[in-house]
Amino acid sequence: MVGSIANSLVEVGEDNTTPMVPLVNNVGTTCLTITEPEVGKEAVEARDASIEDVLVKYVKHLKERTQHHLGYPYNLDFDYGSVIAKLSGFSINNLGDPFIESNYGVHSRQFEVAVLDWFAHLWEINKQDYWGYVTSCGTEGNLHGILVGREVFPDGILYASKETHYSVFKAARMYRMECVKVETLVSGEISWEDLQDKLLLNRNKPAIVNVNIGTTVKGAVDDLDKVIQILERNGFKDRFYIHCDSALFGLMMPFFNQAPKITFKKPIGSVSVSGHKFIGCPMPCGVVITRSIYENKLSDFNQVEYLASVDSTIMGSRNGLAPVLLWHGLNRKGYKGLRKAAQKCLRNAIYLKERLRESGISALLNPLSSTVVFERPIDPAFVLQWQLACEGNIAHVVVMPNITIAKIDGFIEELLKMRETWFRGGKIAKPCVAADIGRENCLCELHKI
Amino acid sequence: MVGSIANSLVEVGEDNTTPMVPLVNNVGTTCLTITEPEVGKEAVEARDASIEDVLVKYVKHLKERTQHHLGYPYNLDFDYGSVIAKLSGFSINNLGDPFIESNYGVHSRQFEVAVLDWFAHLWEINKQDYWGYVTSCGTEGNLHGILVGREVFPDGILYASKETHYSVFKAARMYRMECVKVETLVSGEISWEDLQDKLLLNRNKPAIVNVNIGTTVKGAVDDLDKVIQILERNGFKDRFYIHCDSALFGLMMPFFNQAPKITFKKPIGSVSVSGHKFIGCPMPCGVVITRSIYENKLSDFNQVEYLASVDSTIMGSRNGLAPVLLWHGLNRKGYKGLRKAAQKCLRNAIYLKERLRESGISALLNPLSSTVVFERPIDPAFVLQWQLACEGNIAHVVVMPNITIAKIDGFIEELLKMRETWFRGGKIAKPCVAADIGRENCLCELHKI
Repeated sequence: MVGSIANSLVEVGEDNTTPMVPLVNNVGTTCLTITEPEVGKEAVEARDASIEDVLVKYVKHLKERTQHHLGYPYNLDFDYGSVIAKLSGFSINNLGDPFIESNYGVHSRQFEVAVLDWFAHLWEINKQDYWGYVTSCGTEGNLHGILVGREVFPDGILYASKETHYSVFKAARMYRMECVKVETLVSGEISWEDLQDKLLLNRNKPAIVNVNIGTTVKGAVDDLDKVIQILERNGFKDRFYIHCDSALFGLMMPFFNQAPKITFKKPIGSVSVSGHKFIGCPMPCGVVITRSIYENKLSDFNQVEYLASVDSTIMGSRNGLAPVLLWHGLNRKGYKGLRKAAQKCLRNAIYLKERLRESGISALLNPLSSTVVFERPIDPAFVLQWQLACEGNIAHVVVMPNITIAKIDGFIEELLKMRETWFRGGKIAKPCVAADIGRENCLCELHKI
Repeated sequence: MVGSIANSLVEVGEDNTTPMVPLVNNVGTTCLTITEPEVGKEAVEARDASIEDVLVKYVKHLKERTQHHLGYPYNLDFDYGSVIAKLSGFSINNLGDPFIESNYGVHSRQFEVAVLDWFAHLWEINKQDYWGYVTSCGTEGNLHGILVGREVFPDGILYASKETHYSVFKAARMYRMECVKVETLVSGEISWEDLQDKLLLNRNKPAIVNVNIGTTVKGAVDDLDKVIQILERNGFKDRFYIHCDSALFGLMMPFFNQAPKITFKKPIGSVSVSGHKFIGCPMPCGVVITRSIYENKLSDFNQVEYLASVDSTIMGSRNGLAPVLLWHGLNRKGYKGLRKAAQKCLRNAIYLKERLRESGISALLNPLSSTVVFERPIDPAFVLQWQLACEGNIAHVVVMPNITIAKIDGFIEELLKMRETWFRGGKIAKPCVAADIGRENCLCELHKI
């Protein structure tokens, strides 16, 4: 099946007019070389036709890949076609601060601030007390939140569980921060005990703690209240900063009953969320919200006369289309629509987990999570075909609104068929994944009841 | 005229269905609040109609603002409508390394690598010797280039002229690097003398030098050869890293005869350029190219099993639409088309400077630059109307391919009319800008010949 992906792209260059060379470091895809256009009306027409041809085949390929996608937390079911058609002719750029208009008039701040206000309301912080912006992705939100933390506590140590998204460790390295990795439970949740032990080893320095609202691989939710309690109980009161990485579940958790609440009424410093995950968006984007009192620490440094604005953002030039799409999506869905979609994801995730378990496949589904973790399929081609994200012995499916029961059934059917071959109808023993997802979730010979 | 901008937006909310509130920190624009949709078919239809109405008015506003834009270096004349229409339904994300396919199949690496190869060819570095990626903006390219420099020389000092883009100073602060600001000449170019003096004060530490290929305000080009000469002559041989910030002129300079050449045959470490500036693109984007030998320093740290890829990029999730648009633009324009456009920009910039000067307005146009710097119009409303970027006593127009002779004439006509009022037909003296753009370019009472 790896072949089928490569083929559908190799196809693109078959007409000879679009020369193709393999990518430097891996061979799955070939690249579409840019060549100097020839002169003359006919040559131009031929070139345009060849470009069109490449695009038509690319779209076909994208459709197939979108259909067979399960592993990454992207809602691939959205329709902003009519909005984008209206706006694709403009270079909309919200450069600088969302709240301070720059001299560049082709911006979408009026949409951006509406989106920010919506999230501020969701996370219970008053308009005058927050600052934030629409980012180019979840990573930018983490980079921003942790930078604010470092500016608040320049000698603070960054604590993050070892199952934290890699962007947080990237931030520590970029920002030259001391960083302590904290152990996790089998569920993927941060180990409170280990957090406490490690805090006590570094009592003299403030703590900057990254809290995961949905870890990347297991969809585990760190217990924010417990983290705050541990910090306060161990002498860190008024000497800590919490960044909540809600990239994945930031927009689902508020709609689950009994879920711990992410709110600025608790002593947190910043929250980030991705816009292209649960809502769905044709380009990566996200939102970061922090307290305006902290933000002054960054903006003092970043007065930019040239823009007639202040730039406390990481990126400076910022895609102005994304805020309009988020505005459009949130306006149409509203809390009610999001709640419905979130609950459907949870139901479908339970369905997937149960279908896996009843088929004898080890699987874990954390509470308040739509990430179903299971035995890693042993054939890499199968993994690629369904675009599963894998780590060690496990793979996962993140059930987003576009993952329907029919899609799950199709996946299970193919997986079961392939497993017959992989395990030779039971002659080869199934792997043990107890260390990865817990004994109670493991269905290997040793652990199944 | 400030009023007219505000009005065109206030208009948007007049129908009461889209409540509006002023932005927190400035009052030019009002924001478009997101409200919970009501239940029922009619309510949904009314909501959709109101959203449509907002968008139609917003498009009208964008058209007007795009028409009256002169100050920022964005080519607003492009047409990717048909490409975007094909791709707007997909969530194309090149997460991770451009050269190593991740498990997520909805990507555009085959276009991205083609774009990177094109730039590598332009800057004369072999395929196997470079690494790079399509960034989300010029700032990301600078952040990446300077990070590579810091990893190569962890105790290096960053040198950048005081007219360098603010993202470079932002990088220094983010990365906790020692940073030395170097004086500039009146043209905006880095002062070699001051660079040498400052290098000699810090002989014991390696030098990371940012070279501007087009400064933000005056469009001045630092002399790369001279910078290299100064470094080598003063004992920094094999102890320096040069990042070329070519955000603005990176795609124009190669097409000017006599322009100093940006090439990896010289001892430079990285080059970044913006994709939405000279080429034009509906979203900010850019390209950064560095040497693959350096890149290993970052990627060792950033193996991401979850992605089945390596992530040495700053952002992680990366907009996959931008590489397709750049591929499309470069394929259609080619070197020939870009050369023609670049030369037209230069000609039109000379025309604008001459029209200003013959009208008695002080103006500067650096060689190899299409940035025309002139007396800052004293009425802020005029500045906003034409979206001029200003700093101190000066404003500028960056002549991009969409700035035609007709647009220049319209601007000059309006400026002259307004100046009659501002200076009361000559009764009020024109300001002296000799300190900003040089005596020879100043047409105040004292300096005009």
